[in-house]
Amino acid sequence: MTRQQLIDQIRRKKSFLCVGLDPDLKKLPSHILRMPDPIFEFNKQIIDATAPFAVAYKPNIAFYEALGPRGWNSLQRTMGYIPKDCFTIADAKRGDIGNTSALYAKAFFDKGSSGMSFDSITVAPYMGRDSVLPFLEFENKWVILLALTSNEGSNDFQTLISNPLLIAPDNYDGIGNSQVLLDTQNRYLFEEVLSRSQTWAHANRLMYVVGATKAQMLQRIRQIVPDSFLLIPGVGAQGGSLQEVAQFGLNKDCGLLVNAARSIIYASSGSDFAVKAGQEAQKLQQEMAHYLQNAGIA
Amino acid sequence: MTRQQLIDQIRRKKSFLCVGLDPDLKKLPSHILRMPDPIFEFNKQIIDATAPFAVAYKPNIAFYEALGPRGWNSLQRTMGYIPKDCFTIADAKRGDIGNTSALYAKAFFDKGSSGMSFDSITVAPYMGRDSVLPFLEFENKWVILLALTSNEGSNDFQTLISNPLLIAPDNYDGIGNSQVLLDTQNRYLFEEVLSRSQTWAHANRLMYVVGATKAQMLQRIRQIVPDSFLLIPGVGAQGGSLQEVAQFGLNKDCGLLVNAARSIIYASSGSDFAVKAGQEAQKLQQEMAHYLQNAGIA
Repeated sequence: MTRQQLIDQIRRKKSFLCVGLDPDLKKLPSHILRMPDPIFEFNKQIIDATAPFAVAYKPNIAFYEALGPRGWNSLQRTMGYIPKDCFTIADAKRGDIGNTSALYAKAFFDKGSSGMSFDSITVAPYMGRDSVLPFLEFENKWVILLALTSNEGSNDFQTLISNPLLIAPDNYDGIGNSQVLLDTQNRYLFEEVLSRSQTWAHANRLMYVVGATKAQMLQRIRQIVPDSFLLIPGVGAQGGSLQEVAQFGLNKDCGLLVNAARSIIYASSGSDFAVKAGQEAQKLQQEMAHYLQNAGIA
Repeated sequence: MTRQQLIDQIRRKKSFLCVGLDPDLKKLPSHILRMPDPIFEFNKQIIDATAPFAVAYKPNIAFYEALGPRGWNSLQRTMGYIPKDCFTIADAKRGDIGNTSALYAKAFFDKGSSGMSFDSITVAPYMGRDSVLPFLEFENKWVILLALTSNEGSNDFQTLISNPLLIAPDNYDGIGNSQVLLDTQNRYLFEEVLSRSQTWAHANRLMYVVGATKAQMLQRIRQIVPDSFLLIPGVGAQGGSLQEVAQFGLNKDCGLLVNAARSIIYASSGSDFAVKAGQEAQKLQQEMAHYLQNAGIA
């Protein structure tokens, strides 16, 4: 999907809602569990109920992979069911050396090989440029790079302060003392990820994951990537505020995809789960429509 | 598998060889491609030929995942065939927020859920502590954390210099200037990963990936993690030297698993591929036996 097609859909639906398809067998309604492919059946009803309000769907691949081959079959069927105008995200957090990333790209982008073709995949940045580029060799497919995630462990490395002047020269033995000057501006590691990856691809192929629990960081992030779309998990169950995300994150093209999973798909555990999911999705869409209107976008 | 069982096997086989099971349909011998499950058939013959010389097998999950559900079936069958005394590594480079990592752990460690139970999984460190711990909740299962990888992109972030005194306080606005003192010792990001993760688990549950192309770094790495096992890819096709790896990486318990894939499994593209694979594995094992003997280990 092109950037323009995504923006058009956001304007049409007055929404930047992404629905997380994270079907947990322990949480599915009992009447669904009695069906031959409960994961697909659950997703199908969630999609039917939420499609008027959502512009994207994001299956968290772990939920399918944990079930072995039958999980991958349910994922394939789910992908076949998502309406063609919706943006699809394989939330897989993959990333490996070049020839291996190329195979992960086939797994999620090449229908002829794996049976599935997502619009995008989430990728971990730790292995650098050549672990990311193979995903961009597929036309109109997107990489969504992890920048600042919503979990507590994001403080272990992502917010380490690195100094861009302190990039190790080839012959640096790492034992010497700092050459840093006291007036040098420092950056978080996640800001290095944002900044360096800007040289790998344009904002029409590269998005970033930024947790809603770090909404106050969005101002800093928008200085580095003013045009990029941001995929924002953590609204709802994880405690992030949609209002703050919109306030600090919206750009002239919207530039946001806000994911909600548990608060929508498990809004009810009974036979009315799909109806309740649709209502929760609509509630979020209406709030988003308000922010989009205020910003003059839709 | 326990650390002691792994060490015993290394001593018994006089080897620290890990064989990478990376079956590429474009490279398999033509007589294998005519079989109903060519991936499994190829792996089976490679395992038969190399098992006397190898202490570990490492399927690169991307090669299977790229083929969709049938690839996962071939992987399941392969796992069922690997001799029980060999250490198994799911080279999957996973890592996500806690509840999602718990599902990836089920995918690779919980036979009842996914049909497979590896001894270990490679994990990307970017999302921090809570993305790693769920994998360690399975008894005698190991995490192999990415530290310094063998690819060119490892220089993008892994060798950024961070300053451990510059860990951002909760209220740090990131805009201020550096508080670093000129006499402060700096560290590479990958050294931060090694150092911090030491507080998450002991050396009997946690290993690290260190590319053989960075053998000169092994001395520094051994200062931080003297007891840990290191999984070393990059010998052979990627240009790393086994001699250097042994020189700088061996510890009193060996502490190394050196992976070779292409140089073994594609030693011949003809009907003698398994024989040639066995010969290549034996060659590496003999070189390893020499280093182990010199170090007084086996």
